[in-house]
Amino acid sequence: MRAALAGASRPLGLVPTMGALHAGHLALIHRARSESATVAVSVFVNPLQFGPNEDFERYPRAFDDDVEQLRAAGVDLVYAPDVTTMYPAGFTTAVDPGPVGEGYEGALRPGHFRGVATVCTKLFATVAPDRAYFGAKDAQQVAVLRQVVGDLDLGIELIVLPTVREADGLALSSRNAYLDPEQRAAAPALHRALDAIVAVVRNGERNAQRAVERGRAELQTPLREAYLDVVDPRTFVAEPEIRTPALAIGSAWLGTTRLIDNEPIETSS
Amino acid sequence: MRAALAGASRPLGLVPTMGALHAGHLALIHRARSESATVAVSVFVNPLQFGPNEDFERYPRAFDDDVEQLRAAGVDLVYAPDVTTMYPAGFTTAVDPGPVGEGYEGALRPGHFRGVATVCTKLFATVAPDRAYFGAKDAQQVAVLRQVVGDLDLGIELIVLPTVREADGLALSSRNAYLDPEQRAAAPALHRALDAIVAVVRNGERNAQRAVERGRAELQTPLREAYLDVVDPRTFVAEPEIRTPALAIGSAWLGTTRLIDNEPIETSS
Repeated sequence: MRAALAGASRPLGLVPTMGALHAGHLALIHRARSESATVAVSVFVNPLQFGPNEDFERYPRAFDDDVEQLRAAGVDLVYAPDVTTMYPAGFTTAVDPGPVGEGYEGALRPGHFRGVATVCTKLFATVAPDRAYFGAKDAQQVAVLRQVVGDLDLGIELIVLPTVREADGLALSSRNAYLDPEQRAAAPALHRALDAIVAVVRNGERNAQRAVERGRAELQTPLREAYLDVVDPRTFVAEPEIRTPALAIGSAWLGTTRLIDNEPIETSS
Repeated sequence: MRAALAGASRPLGLVPTMGALHAGHLALIHRARSESATVAVSVFVNPLQFGPNEDFERYPRAFDDDVEQLRAAGVDLVYAPDVTTMYPAGFTTAVDPGPVGEGYEGALRPGHFRGVATVCTKLFATVAPDRAYFGAKDAQQVAVLRQVVGDLDLGIELIVLPTVREADGLALSSRNAYLDPEQRAAAPALHRALDAIVAVVRNGERNAQRAVERGRAELQTPLREAYLDVVDPRTFVAEPEIRTPALAIGSAWLGTTRLIDNEPIETSS
Protein backbone atom coordinates (compact mmCIF):
# COMPACT_ATOMS: atom_id res chain seq x y z
CA MET A 1 0.00 0.00 0.00
CA ARG A 2 2.86 2.35 0.83
CA ALA A 3 4.45 1.59 -2.53
CA ALA A 4 1.18 2.19 -4.37
CA LEU A 5 0.78 5.51 -2.57
CA ALA A 6 4.37 6.73 -2.88
CA GLY A 7 3.69 8.82 -5.96
CA ALA A 8 0.00 9.52 -5.32
CA SER A 9 -1.27 12.95 -6.31
CA ARG A 10 -2.36 15.19 -3.47
CA PRO A 11 -4.65 15.87 -1.78
CA LEU A 12 -5.26 12.27 -0.83
CA GLY A 13 -8.59 11.36 0.76
CA LEU A 14 -9.11 8.18 2.79
CA VAL A 15 -12.49 6.64 3.55
CA PRO A 16 -12.01 3.94 6.23
CA THR A 17 -14.78 1.31 6.13
CA MET A 18 -15.58 -2.18 7.37
CA GLY A 19 -17.05 -3.02 3.95
CA ALA A 20 -20.68 -4.05 3.39
CA LEU A 21 -20.99 -0.69 1.74
CA HIS A 22 -24.25 1.24 1.73
CA ALA A 23 -25.33 4.70 0.57
CA GLY A 24 -23.79 6.26 3.69
CA HIS A 25 -20.35 5.03 2.68
CA LEU A 26 -20.94 6.10 -0.91
CA ALA A 27 -21.77 9.64 0.21
CA LEU A 28 -18.36 9.76 1.94
CA ILE A 29 -16.65 8.41 -1.16
CA HIS A 30 -18.39 10.88 -3.48
CA ARG A 31 -17.39 13.76 -1.25
CA ALA A 32 -13.79 12.50 -1.12
CA ARG A 33 -13.79 12.08 -4.90
CA SER A 34 -15.06 15.64 -5.38
CA GLU A 35 -12.16 17.21 -3.49
CA SER A 36 -9.21 14.80 -3.76
CA ALA A 37 -6.68 14.00 -6.45
CA THR A 38 -6.43 10.48 -5.07
CA VAL A 39 -9.13 8.56 -3.19
CA ALA A 40 -8.26 5.51 -1.10
CA VAL A 41 -10.82 3.33 0.66
CA SER A 42 -9.88 0.81 3.32
CA VAL A 43 -12.03 -2.27 3.81
CA PHE A 44 -11.21 -4.02 7.06
CA VAL A 45 -13.49 -5.62 9.63
CA ASN A 46 -11.37 -4.79 12.67
CA PRO A 47 -11.47 -7.54 15.29
CA LEU A 48 -9.99 -5.20 17.95
CA GLN A 49 -13.15 -3.15 18.05
CA PHE A 50 -15.46 -6.12 18.60
CA GLY A 51 -15.98 -7.62 22.05
CA PRO A 52 -15.76 -11.39 22.61
CA ASN A 53 -19.55 -11.80 22.50
CA GLU A 54 -20.17 -9.41 19.63
CA ASP A 55 -20.86 -9.92 15.94
CA PHE A 56 -17.32 -9.99 14.49
CA GLU A 57 -17.83 -13.40 12.90
CA ARG A 58 -21.23 -12.67 11.43
CA TYR A 59 -20.62 -8.99 10.55
CA PRO A 60 -21.77 -8.61 6.91
CA ARG A 61 -18.96 -9.14 4.39
CA ALA A 62 -19.44 -8.49 0.69
CA PHE A 63 -15.95 -7.84 -0.64
CA ASP A 64 -16.51 -8.54 -4.35
CA ASP A 65 -19.63 -6.44 -4.40
CA ASP A 66 -17.84 -3.69 -2.43
CA VAL A 67 -14.96 -3.57 -4.90
CA GLU A 68 -17.39 -3.27 -7.80
CA GLN A 69 -19.10 -0.33 -6.10
CA LEU A 70 -15.73 1.28 -5.32
CA ARG A 71 -14.61 0.94 -8.93
CA ALA A 72 -17.87 2.47 -10.17
CA ALA A 73 -17.41 5.34 -7.70
CA GLY A 74 -14.00 6.17 -9.16
CA VAL A 75 -11.91 5.09 -6.16
CA ASP A 76 -8.20 4.89 -7.00
CA LEU A 77 -6.96 2.50 -4.33
CA VAL A 78 -8.52 -0.11 -2.08
CA TYR A 79 -6.61 -1.22 1.02
CA ALA A 80 -8.01 -4.51 2.29
CA PRO A 81 -5.42 -6.08 4.60
CA ASP A 82 -6.13 -9.39 6.28
CA VAL A 83 -6.25 -9.70 10.06
CA THR A 84 -2.78 -11.23 10.43
CA THR A 85 -1.26 -8.42 8.36
CA MET A 86 -2.78 -5.85 10.69
CA TYR A 87 -2.26 -7.82 13.90
CA PRO A 88 0.59 -10.30 13.52
CA ALA A 89 1.62 -12.54 16.40
CA GLY A 90 3.21 -10.39 19.08
CA PHE A 91 1.11 -7.32 18.39
CA THR A 92 0.54 -5.51 21.71
CA THR A 93 0.27 -1.74 21.17
CA ALA A 94 -2.99 0.12 21.83
CA VAL A 95 -3.98 3.71 21.27
CA ASP A 96 -6.22 4.79 24.17
CA PRO A 97 -8.29 7.91 23.53
CA GLY A 98 -9.14 8.46 27.22
CA PRO A 99 -12.46 9.60 28.76
CA VAL A 100 -14.16 10.53 25.45
CA GLY A 101 -14.26 6.81 24.67
CA GLU A 102 -15.37 5.57 28.07
CA GLY A 103 -19.11 6.30 28.21
CA TYR A 104 -22.02 5.08 26.08
CA GLU A 105 -20.57 2.87 23.31
CA GLY A 106 -17.34 2.59 25.29
CA ALA A 107 -19.22 1.40 28.37
CA LEU A 108 -21.32 -1.09 26.40
CA ARG A 109 -18.35 -2.26 24.34
CA PRO A 110 -15.26 -2.29 26.60
CA GLY A 111 -12.15 -1.79 24.50
CA HIS A 112 -14.15 -0.76 21.43
CA PHE A 113 -12.69 2.72 21.08
CA ARG A 114 -9.16 1.55 21.84
CA GLY A 115 -9.70 -0.78 18.89
CA VAL A 116 -11.06 2.01 16.71
CA ALA A 117 -8.27 4.40 17.70
CA THR A 118 -5.60 1.76 17.17
CA VAL A 119 -6.77 0.64 13.74
CA CYS A 120 -7.28 4.21 12.53
CA THR A 121 -3.83 5.24 13.75
CA LYS A 122 -2.43 2.33 11.74
CA LEU A 123 -4.49 3.16 8.65
CA PHE A 124 -3.52 6.82 8.89
CA ALA A 125 0.16 5.88 9.24
CA THR A 126 0.05 3.57 6.24
CA VAL A 127 -2.05 5.71 3.89
CA ALA A 128 -0.91 9.16 5.15
CA PRO A 129 -4.08 10.87 3.91
CA ASP A 130 -4.61 14.62 3.93
CA ARG A 131 -8.26 14.08 4.83
CA ALA A 132 -10.24 11.19 6.26
CA TYR A 133 -14.02 10.84 5.90
CA PHE A 134 -16.47 9.56 8.50
CA GLY A 135 -20.21 9.42 8.88
CA ALA A 136 -21.92 11.41 11.63
CA LYS A 137 -23.92 8.31 12.63
CA ASP A 138 -20.95 7.03 14.61
CA ALA A 139 -20.74 10.26 16.57
CA GLN A 140 -18.69 8.97 19.48
CA GLN A 141 -16.24 7.42 17.03
CA VAL A 142 -15.88 10.84 15.43
CA ALA A 143 -15.27 12.44 18.83
CA VAL A 144 -12.69 9.76 19.65
CA LEU A 145 -10.86 10.22 16.36
CA ARG A 146 -10.84 14.02 16.68
CA GLN A 147 -9.24 13.55 20.08
CA VAL A 148 -6.63 11.09 18.81
CA VAL A 149 -5.78 12.96 15.62
CA GLY A 150 -5.38 16.19 17.56
CA ASP A 151 -3.51 14.71 20.51
CA LEU A 152 -1.09 12.65 18.40
CA ASP A 153 -0.44 15.49 15.93
CA LEU A 154 -1.45 13.28 13.03
CA GLY A 155 -2.09 16.31 10.83
CA ILE A 156 -5.16 14.82 9.14
CA GLU A 157 -8.35 16.76 8.54
CA LEU A 158 -11.46 14.81 9.56
CA ILE A 159 -14.47 15.40 7.33
CA VAL A 160 -17.76 14.32 8.86
CA LEU A 161 -20.86 13.98 6.69
CA PRO A 162 -24.48 13.84 7.84
CA THR A 163 -26.09 10.49 8.51
CA VAL A 164 -27.84 9.03 5.48
CA ARG A 165 -31.34 7.76 6.35
CA GLU A 166 -34.08 5.61 4.94
CA ALA A 167 -37.31 7.42 4.04
CA ASP A 168 -38.75 6.59 7.46
CA GLY A 169 -35.75 8.08 9.28
CA LEU A 170 -33.82 4.91 10.11
CA ALA A 171 -30.08 5.61 9.90
CA LEU A 172 -28.33 3.44 7.32
CA SER A 173 -26.15 0.80 8.94
CA SER A 174 -24.67 -2.46 7.77
CA ARG A 175 -26.26 -3.98 10.88
CA ASN A 176 -29.78 -3.12 9.64
CA ALA A 177 -29.43 -6.33 7.63
CA TYR A 178 -29.83 -8.23 10.91
CA LEU A 179 -33.39 -6.93 11.47
CA ASP A 180 -36.44 -9.07 10.74
CA PRO A 181 -39.46 -7.33 9.18
CA GLU A 182 -41.15 -6.62 12.52
CA GLN A 183 -37.95 -5.19 13.98
CA ARG A 184 -37.33 -3.16 10.84
CA ALA A 185 -40.80 -1.66 11.13
CA ALA A 186 -40.16 -0.67 14.75
CA ALA A 187 -36.59 0.63 14.21
CA PRO A 188 -37.39 4.24 13.16
CA ALA A 189 -38.67 4.93 16.68
CA LEU A 190 -35.05 5.44 17.78
CA HIS A 191 -34.74 8.37 15.41
CA ARG A 192 -38.14 9.70 16.46
CA ALA A 193 -36.96 9.68 20.07
CA LEU A 194 -33.94 11.80 19.13
CA ASP A 195 -36.09 14.14 17.05
CA ALA A 196 -38.42 14.55 20.03
CA ILE A 197 -35.49 15.59 22.23
CA VAL A 198 -34.31 18.09 19.62
CA ALA A 199 -37.83 19.50 19.34
CA VAL A 200 -38.32 20.12 23.06
CA VAL A 201 -34.91 21.74 23.34
CA ARG A 202 -35.76 23.97 20.39
CA ASN A 203 -38.91 24.90 22.29
CA GLY A 204 -36.83 26.06 25.21
CA GLU A 205 -36.30 23.03 27.43
CA ARG A 206 -32.83 23.19 29.00
CA ASN A 207 -33.17 20.47 31.60
CA ALA A 208 -31.46 17.42 30.14
CA GLN A 209 -33.40 14.90 32.21
CA ARG A 210 -36.77 16.27 31.14
CA ALA A 211 -35.69 16.46 27.48
CA VAL A 212 -34.49 12.86 27.55
CA GLU A 213 -37.72 11.70 29.21
CA ARG A 214 -39.65 13.21 26.33
CA GLY A 215 -37.55 11.18 23.87
CA ARG A 216 -37.85 8.05 25.98
CA ALA A 217 -41.60 8.08 25.49
CA GLU A 218 -40.99 7.16 21.83
CA LEU A 219 -38.99 4.04 22.68
CA GLN A 220 -41.59 1.32 23.02
CA THR A 221 -41.65 -2.46 22.66
CA PRO A 222 -40.02 -4.17 20.80
CA LEU A 223 -37.27 -1.53 21.21
CA ARG A 224 -35.34 -1.67 24.48
CA GLU A 225 -33.30 1.38 25.34
CA ALA A 226 -29.54 0.93 25.75
CA TYR A 227 -29.00 4.63 26.39
CA LEU A 228 -30.59 7.96 25.54
CA ASP A 229 -28.89 11.20 26.51
CA VAL A 230 -27.76 14.69 25.55
CA VAL A 231 -23.99 15.21 25.46
CA ASP A 232 -21.29 17.63 24.44
CA PRO A 233 -20.42 16.38 20.92
CA ARG A 234 -16.66 16.84 21.51
CA THR A 235 -16.29 15.23 24.95
CA PHE A 236 -19.36 12.97 25.15
CA VAL A 237 -19.99 14.29 28.64
CA ALA A 238 -23.63 14.88 29.66
CA GLU A 239 -24.48 18.03 31.60
CA PRO A 240 -27.72 18.47 33.65
CA GLU A 241 -28.29 21.81 31.91
CA ILE A 242 -28.19 21.61 28.11
CA ARG A 243 -25.74 23.98 26.46
CA THR A 244 -25.48 24.07 22.69
CA PRO A 245 -23.94 22.80 20.53
CA ALA A 246 -25.17 19.55 22.00
CA LEU A 247 -25.93 16.13 20.62
CA ALA A 248 -28.90 13.91 21.34
CA ILE A 249 -27.61 10.33 21.29
CA GLY A 250 -29.45 7.08 21.55
CA SER A 251 -29.13 3.36 21.26
CA ALA A 252 -31.75 0.65 21.39
CA TRP A 253 -31.91 -3.10 21.14
CA LEU A 254 -34.15 -4.94 18.71
CA GLY A 255 -33.72 -8.59 19.60
CA THR A 256 -29.95 -9.20 19.56
CA THR A 257 -29.25 -6.22 17.29
CA ARG A 258 -28.36 -2.90 18.85
CA LEU A 259 -28.89 0.25 16.77
CA ILE A 260 -27.35 3.67 17.39
CA ASP A 261 -28.26 7.12 16.16
CA ASN A 262 -27.86 10.78 17.05
CA GLU A 263 -29.16 14.23 16.14
CA PRO A 264 -27.34 17.52 16.61
CA ILE A 265 -29.02 20.18 18.72
CA GLU A 266 -28.31 23.75 17.71
CA THR A 267 -30.34 26.55 19.20
CA SER A 268 -30.23 30.24 18.61
CA SER A 269 -30.41 31.09 22.30
CA MET B 1 7.92 22.36 12.41
CA ARG B 2 5.75 20.81 9.72
CA ALA B 3 6.23 23.91 7.57
CA ALA B 4 10.00 23.87 8.08
CA LEU B 5 10.08 20.19 7.11
CA ALA B 6 7.72 20.37 4.12
CA GLY B 7 10.52 20.66 1.58
CA ALA B 8 13.22 18.86 3.56
CA SER B 9 15.61 16.70 1.57
CA ARG B 10 15.38 12.99 2.21
CA PRO B 11 16.39 10.86 3.95
CA LEU B 12 15.46 12.73 7.10
CA GLY B 13 16.96 11.57 10.38
CA LEU B 14 15.45 12.46 13.77
CA VAL B 15 17.31 12.28 17.08
CA PRO B 16 14.77 12.63 19.92
CA THR B 17 16.38 13.95 23.13
CA MET B 18 15.47 15.51 26.45
CA GLY B 19 18.37 17.95 26.06
CA ALA B 20 21.30 18.20 28.51
CA LEU B 21 23.28 16.74 25.66
CA HIS B 22 26.33 14.56 26.26
CA ALA B 23 28.66 12.53 24.07
CA GLY B 24 26.05 9.76 23.80
CA HIS B 25 23.62 12.13 22.12
CA LEU B 26 26.38 13.51 19.90
CA ALA B 27 27.24 10.02 18.70
CA LEU B 28 23.61 9.63 17.57
CA ILE B 29 23.69 13.01 15.86
CA HIS B 30 26.97 12.29 14.07
CA ARG B 31 25.60 9.00 12.81
CA ALA B 32 22.40 10.70 11.65
CA ARG B 33 24.44 13.43 9.96
CA SER B 34 26.57 10.85 8.14
CA GLU B 35 23.60 9.17 6.48
CA SER B 36 20.85 11.81 6.20
CA ALA B 37 20.18 14.72 3.89
CA THR B 38 18.35 16.47 6.73
CA VAL B 39 18.95 16.02 10.46
CA ALA B 40 16.34 17.10 13.00
CA VAL B 41 16.84 16.95 16.76
CA SER B 42 13.98 17.29 19.21
CA VAL B 43 14.67 18.72 22.67
CA PHE B 44 11.75 18.11 25.01
CA VAL B 45 11.70 17.07 28.65
CA ASN B 46 8.53 15.03 28.49
CA PRO B 47 6.44 15.33 31.67
CA LEU B 48 4.34 12.28 30.69
CA GLN B 49 7.26 9.95 31.22
CA PHE B 50 8.06 11.21 34.73
CA GLY B 51 6.15 9.98 37.77
CA PRO B 52 4.76 12.43 40.34
CA ASN B 53 7.71 11.88 42.70
CA GLU B 54 10.39 11.82 40.03
CA ASP B 55 12.89 14.40 38.84
CA PHE B 56 10.93 16.22 36.13
CA GLU B 57 11.41 19.60 37.77
CA ARG B 58 15.11 19.19 38.48
CA TYR B 59 16.00 17.23 35.32
CA PRO B 60 19.05 19.01 33.86
CA ARG B 61 18.14 21.69 31.30
CA ALA B 62 20.77 23.47 29.25
CA PHE B 63 18.94 24.68 26.17
CA ASP B 64 21.30 27.45 25.01
CA ASP B 65 24.30 25.20 25.39
CA ASP B 66 22.43 22.35 23.66
CA VAL B 67 21.60 24.55 20.66
CA GLU B 68 25.22 25.62 20.35
CA GLN B 69 26.31 21.97 20.31
CA LEU B 70 23.62 21.10 17.77
CA ARG B 71 24.68 23.94 15.50
CA ALA B 72 28.31 22.84 15.72
CA ALA B 73 27.27 19.27 14.89
CA GLY B 74 25.60 20.43 11.67
CA VAL B 75 22.00 19.78 12.73
CA ASP B 76 19.49 21.36 10.32
CA LEU B 77 16.43 21.68 12.53
CA VAL B 78 15.77 21.76 16.25
CA TYR B 79 12.23 21.03 17.48
CA ALA B 80 11.82 22.27 21.05
CA PRO B 81 8.08 22.57 21.77
CA ASP B 82 6.91 23.73 25.17
CA VAL B 83 4.78 21.51 27.37
CA THR B 84 1.47 23.22 26.58
CA THR B 85 2.12 22.87 22.85
CA MET B 86 2.62 19.13 23.27
CA TYR B 87 -0.09 18.63 25.90
CA PRO B 88 -2.71 21.37 25.68
CA ALA B 89 -5.68 21.41 28.03
CA GLY B 90 -7.95 18.49 27.13
CA PHE B 91 -5.15 16.20 25.99
CA THR B 92 -6.17 12.61 26.86
CA THR B 93 -4.73 10.15 24.33
CA ALA B 94 -2.11 7.58 25.31
CA VAL B 95 -0.14 5.07 23.29
CA ASP B 96 0.24 1.91 25.35
CA PRO B 97 2.98 -0.45 24.21
CA GLY B 98 1.69 -3.42 26.22
CA PRO B 99 3.71 -6.02 28.16
CA VAL B 100 7.14 -5.00 26.84
CA GLY B 101 6.78 -1.81 28.87
CA GLU B 102 5.42 -3.37 32.06
CA GLY B 103 8.47 -4.88 33.78
CA TYR B 104 11.68 -3.32 35.11
CA GLU B 105 11.58 0.42 34.28
CA GLY B 106 7.84 0.12 33.65
CA ALA B 107 7.29 -1.43 37.07
CA LEU B 108 9.47 1.14 38.85
CA ARG B 109 8.00 4.03 36.85
CA PRO B 110 4.28 3.33 36.28
CA GLY B 111 3.14 5.06 33.10
CA HIS B 112 6.71 5.81 31.99
CA PHE B 113 6.60 3.85 28.76
CA ARG B 114 3.10 5.04 27.90
CA GLY B 115 4.63 8.51 28.17
CA VAL B 116 7.61 7.55 26.02
CA ALA B 117 5.42 5.84 23.42
CA THR B 118 2.99 8.74 23.33
CA VAL B 119 5.58 11.48 22.94
CA CYS B 120 7.54 9.54 20.32
CA THR B 121 4.37 8.83 18.33
CA LYS B 122 3.70 12.58 18.36
CA LEU B 123 7.28 13.46 17.40
CA PHE B 124 7.26 10.88 14.64
CA ALA B 125 3.93 12.20 13.31
CA THR B 126 5.17 15.79 13.31
CA VAL B 127 8.66 15.24 11.92
CA ALA B 128 7.88 12.19 9.72
CA PRO B 129 11.49 10.98 9.75
CA ASP B 130 12.81 8.11 7.68
CA ARG B 131 15.05 7.05 10.56
CA ALA B 132 15.10 7.77 14.28
CA TYR B 133 18.20 7.34 16.46
CA PHE B 134 18.35 6.04 20.01
CA GLY B 135 21.06 4.98 22.43
CA ALA B 136 21.32 1.36 23.53
CA LYS B 137 21.58 2.50 27.17
CA ASP B 138 17.80 2.88 27.33
CA ALA B 139 17.30 -0.68 26.14
CA GLN B 140 13.73 -1.12 27.31
CA GLN B 141 12.82 2.17 25.67
CA VAL B 142 14.26 0.79 22.44
CA ALA B 143 12.23 -2.41 22.82
CA VAL B 144 9.08 -0.37 23.50
CA LEU B 145 9.62 1.84 20.47
CA ARG B 146 10.35 -1.11 18.19
CA GLN B 147 7.04 -2.57 19.34
CA VAL B 148 5.10 0.66 18.78
CA VAL B 149 6.70 1.54 15.44
CA GLY B 150 6.06 -1.96 14.16
CA ASP B 151 2.54 -2.34 15.57
CA LEU B 152 1.34 1.09 14.43
CA ASP B 153 2.91 0.76 10.96
CA LEU B 154 4.83 4.00 11.45
CA GLY B 155 7.32 3.05 8.74
CA ILE B 156 10.33 4.49 10.57
CA GLU B 157 13.66 2.70 10.81
CA LEU B 158 15.06 2.72 14.34
CA ILE B 159 18.83 3.01 14.53
CA VAL B 160 20.29 2.01 17.88
CA LEU B 161 23.89 2.91 18.73
CA PRO B 162 26.05 1.41 21.48
CA THR B 163 26.14 3.03 24.89
CA VAL B 164 28.89 5.62 25.26
CA ARG B 165 30.85 5.15 28.48
CA GLU B 166 33.30 6.95 30.69
CA ALA B 167 36.79 5.44 30.90
CA ASP B 168 35.78 3.50 34.02
CA GLY B 169 32.75 1.95 32.30
CA LEU B 170 29.99 4.21 33.67
CA ALA B 171 27.32 4.73 30.98
CA LEU B 172 26.89 8.38 30.06
CA SER B 173 23.63 9.79 31.36
CA SER B 174 22.34 13.28 32.01
CA ARG B 175 21.47 12.00 35.49
CA ASN B 176 25.15 11.33 36.30
CA ALA B 177 25.25 15.05 37.12
CA TYR B 178 23.24 14.23 40.26
CA LEU B 179 26.03 12.06 41.73
CA ASP B 180 28.32 13.37 44.47
CA PRO B 181 32.03 12.37 44.27
CA GLU B 182 31.63 9.30 46.47
CA GLN B 183 28.61 8.10 44.49
CA ARG B 184 30.40 8.79 41.22
CA ALA B 185 33.34 6.67 42.38
CA ALA B 186 31.00 3.77 43.23
CA ALA B 187 28.83 4.04 40.10
CA PRO B 188 30.89 1.88 37.69
CA ALA B 189 30.09 -1.19 39.79
CA LEU B 190 26.74 -1.39 37.97
CA HIS B 191 28.53 -1.93 34.69
CA ARG B 192 30.94 -4.39 36.31
CA ALA B 193 27.94 -6.40 37.52
CA LEU B 194 26.62 -6.62 33.95
CA ASP B 195 30.05 -7.52 32.60
CA ALA B 196 30.30 -10.27 35.19
CA ILE B 197 26.99 -11.74 33.99
CA VAL B 198 28.14 -11.60 30.37
CA ALA B 199 31.40 -13.28 31.30
CA VAL B 200 29.84 -16.25 33.11
CA VAL B 201 27.37 -16.79 30.26
CA ARG B 202 30.25 -16.72 27.79
CA ASN B 203 31.87 -19.38 29.94
CA GLY B 204 28.85 -21.59 29.54
CA GLU B 205 26.46 -20.69 32.34
CA ARG B 206 22.87 -20.97 31.09
CA ASN B 207 21.01 -20.75 34.39
CA ALA B 208 19.77 -17.17 34.62
CA GLN B 209 19.54 -17.13 38.41
CA ARG B 210 23.13 -18.25 38.87
CA ALA B 211 24.38 -15.80 36.26
CA VAL B 212 22.52 -12.93 37.92
CA GLU B 213 23.86 -13.94 41.37
CA ARG B 214 27.38 -13.64 39.99
CA GLY B 215 26.63 -10.09 38.85
CA ARG B 216 24.92 -9.23 42.11
CA ALA B 217 28.16 -9.85 43.98
CA GLU B 218 29.54 -6.68 42.34
CA LEU B 219 26.73 -4.45 43.64
CA GLN B 220 27.93 -3.32 47.04
CA THR B 221 27.26 -0.36 49.31
CA PRO B 222 26.63 2.47 48.55
CA LEU B 223 24.87 0.95 45.48
CA ARG B 224 21.47 -0.58 46.17
CA GLU B 225 20.10 -2.87 43.49
CA ALA B 226 16.81 -1.89 41.87
CA TYR B 227 16.89 -4.87 39.50
CA LEU B 228 19.42 -7.13 37.83
CA ASP B 229 18.31 -9.70 35.29
CA VAL B 230 18.79 -11.35 31.92
CA VAL B 231 16.00 -10.76 29.40
CA ASP B 232 15.03 -11.22 25.78
CA PRO B 233 16.03 -7.85 24.28
CA ARG B 234 12.85 -7.66 22.16
CA THR B 235 10.23 -8.61 24.75
CA PHE B 236 12.00 -7.83 28.06
CA VAL B 237 10.82 -11.18 29.36
CA ALA B 238 13.26 -13.13 31.57
CA GLU B 239 13.59 -16.87 31.03
CA PRO B 240 15.06 -19.29 33.63
CA GLU B 241 17.31 -20.75 30.90
CA ILE B 242 19.34 -18.12 29.03
CA ARG B 243 18.92 -18.21 25.27
CA THR B 244 20.88 -15.78 23.13
CA PRO B 245 20.59 -13.13 21.95
CA ALA B 246 19.93 -11.99 25.49
CA LEU B 247 20.49 -8.79 27.40
CA ALA B 248 21.90 -8.35 30.89
CA ILE B 249 20.05 -5.41 32.42
CA GLY B 250 20.57 -3.66 35.69
CA SER B 251 19.59 -0.68 37.75
CA ALA B 252 20.93 0.58 41.06
CA TRP B 253 20.32 3.44 43.41
CA LEU B 254 23.00 5.79 44.62
CA GLY B 255 21.29 7.99 47.18
CA THR B 256 18.20 9.37 45.42
CA THR B 257 19.65 8.82 41.93
CA ARG B 258 18.86 5.61 40.08
CA LEU B 259 21.21 4.53 37.30
CA ILE B 260 20.46 2.00 34.55
CA ASP B 261 22.69 0.07 32.22
CA ASN B 262 22.77 -3.08 30.09
CA GLU B 263 25.10 -5.32 28.15
CA PRO B 264 24.20 -7.58 25.25
CA ILE B 265 24.97 -11.27 25.56
CA GLU B 266 25.84 -13.02 22.36
CA THR B 267 27.28 -16.49 22.44
CA SER B 268 28.39 -18.75 19.68
CA SER B 269 26.67 -21.82 21.13
